[in-house]
Order: sequence, then C-alpha cells, then structure tokens
Amino acid sequence: MDPVKVIEIKKSVFAENDKDAADLRNELKGRGVYLLNLMSSPGSGKTTTLIRTINLLKDKLRIAVMEADIDSDVDAVKIKEATGIESIQLHTGGMCHLDAEMTRQGLAGFDRADVDLIILENVGNLVCPAEFDTGAVRNAMILSVPEGDDKPLKYPLMFTVCDTVVVNKTDVLPYFDFDLDRCRANVRLRNPKARVIPICAKTGEGVKDFADWLLQEVSDWKKK
Amino acid sequence: MDPVKVIEIKKSVFAENDKDAADLRNELKGRGVYLLNLMSSPGSGKTTTLIRTINLLKDKLRIAVMEADIDSDVDAVKIKEATGIESIQLHTGGMCHLDAEMTRQGLAGFDRADVDLIILENVGNLVCPAEFDTGAVRNAMILSVPEGDDKPLKYPLMFTVCDTVVVNKTDVLPYFDFDLDRCRANVRLRNPKARVIPICAKTGEGVKDFADWLLQEVSDWKKK
Repeated sequence: MDPVKVIEIKKSVFAENDKDAADLRNELKGRGVYLLNLMSSPGSGKTTTLIRTINLLKDKLRIAVMEADIDSDVDAVKIKEATGIESIQLHTGGMCHLDAEMTRQGLAGFDRADVDLIILENVGNLVCPAEFDTGAVRNAMILSVPEGDDKPLKYPLMFTVCDTVVVNKTDVLPYFDFDLDRCRANVRLRNPKARVIPICAKTGEGVKDFADWLLQEVSDWKKK
Repeated sequence: MDPVKVIEIKKSVFAENDKDAADLRNELKGRGVYLLNLMSSPGSGKTTTLIRTINLLKDKLRIAVMEADIDSDVDAVKIKEATGIESIQLHTGGMCHLDAEMTRQGLAGFDRADVDLIILENVGNLVCPAEFDTGAVRNAMILSVPEGDDKPLKYPLMFTVCDTVVVNKTDVLPYFDFDLDRCRANVRLRNPKARVIPICAKTGEGVKDFADWLLQEVSDWKKK
C-alpha cells in the first residue's frame, strides 16, 4: 500500500472566511461533492467511528477522507489500511482549527476528484474548530461517554453549530455518570434541531444509524 | 454560601506574552504565591481531581482556584462547595486559552491575597493553552485513560511544556486499550523529564502522590 499523502497546511490569507466558505460550498455542490466536517475532543473515537461508517457506506458512495492533525500521520494511515479509500493527512503545524482556505488546500491534495462524500476529521478540540466555517454542508461532532453529558453546557458554540451529535463509547455507560436523556436535553439547549445518535464504534453498535443519516444527507444534497 | 465570583476576561493588549508571563511569575514570587497551570482535554476530570487534591492539602497550604471556562460556572461552584476554599470563575468569552495578562485579570479578582498556592484550571483544550505562558511556575496536565495513550504523539507541544502528566480514570483501564508503560514512553518522547502520576479521582486512588508532589513543589519554590 502506498504511504498516505501528507499536506502541510499554511495559514490562511483570506480575511473573509464566511464568504470563502460559502464559495467553497458552492464549488463542491457544482462537483456533486458533499463535505462533512466532523469535530470532537481528543480521544473521542473519531477515527474508529469513521472506519466503521466508511465500511458500511463504501459500496454505496465514493468516499474520501482528510485527517487534520497537528503533527502525526497515525489516523490517515489507519483509515487507509482499514477501508482502502483515499485518505490524506493534513498537518496544521500547531494550528488549532481549519478554516475554508485550509480545507481547500487539503481538497487540492486528493488524487481523485469524482467522489460523493468527503469527510474532514477536524483537529481534536471543542473550542476553536467551532468558530470557523470550513465550507462543509454539515457539522457533526462526536461526544464520548467518558467526557460527560455536561459538555454542551461548557462548550456552547460547538453544540450550537453541530446538527448531529454522535455519542460514542456507549459500552462504558455502566462505568460513568453519563445519562443519555440528560445529554439529549443539554444538546437541545444549544441546538433544538440537533439529532443525537448513540453508538459504540468499538463493537459497531448503532453505527448504522449514523451511516444511514449520512447516506440520506448525501442523497438529499445531490437532489437540491 | 456566597455565589462564586465570575470574571469576564478581556482580550490581552500585550503583544509580548513571554515577557509579561516572566514579570507575573516574579511578582507572584515576591508575594510567595506558587501558581500551577493545569490543562487537559474536555472531560478528563480536572475538577474532580482538584477537589480531591485540595481536600488533602488545605490544612497544609492556603489554596485558591481560578476556573477558566468559555461560559458556564459549574466548575467553580463545585470546587467551592466541595472544598470551602476561594474559587473564582473566569469566562474567556469564547477564547480557547489564557495568556499571562488574562491570568492577571483573574488574579485581581481574588478577595484574599495571602495564599501559598493558586491553581489555574485552564480551558479544556490540548492545543492552544500549550502555546501561551500564563506566568505559572509549572504546567501540569491530566490525560484520562479513555482518551488513549497515543495523545503525546498527536498533541506534541502540550506534552512538551508539561512537567507532570496525571493519568486519570485508572479504574476503567480494563475497558480501554490504554497501556501505562506505553503512555510513559510516549510522554517521555516529548519531555524526558516529565513525571507520570496515575490516579483515579473518582475513588481517590493515587491522588496523594499528586498532592505530595505539589506540596514539595510549593515548599521548594518558597525556599528559592
């Protein structure tokens, strides 16, 4: 297997990120590409969730992945090995988020352009990534059970900008003081329309619900 | 019990944070105050760890706590209720870190000045807080077992600037693929002198090791 491509992301020169993000969304629409921006804390299980999800969807959709990380290549290599799809690594050089121009730099690194779905795994951080529109159609985030069901109270913007909250590591619910109903209530305080999807990426439980949502999303977007 | 004081932190006007941080450290040294900057991901258990640690130390040291959070007051209230010490809440207004000037704004909010140890609970984030010297004598961080033992590979600067890494939630080691020796090796790749202290804040196991280290630190700092 070829090594994964690593892109060293440069700081954006565009001041107007919102406009740039809207332009990028339009360009991707023209190409028939749905971009999902997936955010979370460090260690919430983004990569494992993606591997499970991609393996459920890769016969139905042409998928590619951009893994944003400060330094390492661990995640892109894991995704490529476990799913066979094109996966590239973005190095942010210490930067704590991606904006639309940085996302664009990553998109330019793909070998193949004819994909239906590109998933951007953003930097593990509940603060800064929420502040920048990447040009994605949707923002989703993963909250893992050990982090606690109070996170929507503490990181309000992240939960406001996300339409979908995947609650991962449900297998350890018995060992933590995490209540799914309280979590749903806290999420909806920030975004009344957000859907909450409980999964366990380790065992695969519930991942089909997330994959089905994403499949429907891509299909709806193509029809728009 | 009085409500906790909430300080709305303003953006720093100082360009030279390193110099400002060194000045603040000197001022605190003159007042005999040891400042600890405690960092971690969201949900790693900083507040629970602090409550346990403060209750072990509060008869030996005069302690105060600053809780930095984007919005909520949950943590400062918890600390005050569980320990009885002065605890103030800093609202960063969406900012993802604290620098020396922001720390100074927080320090000015304390009612009592004659303390030996002030603990700053930084914003839950493994990226940005590592980039800014707060004026603290030491940086410590909490890595929780569910986050994974690979975090030093992915967040290199955080583990480079921390002298002490507390590994929390050891009670769930059987349910996660987390190896303490591998964690130690990864931490030392970034900072060969860092000490790793395994604890379980929930049960209290190991917290005395962290408290003893901190007590020694404050004592050594006073003698310098």
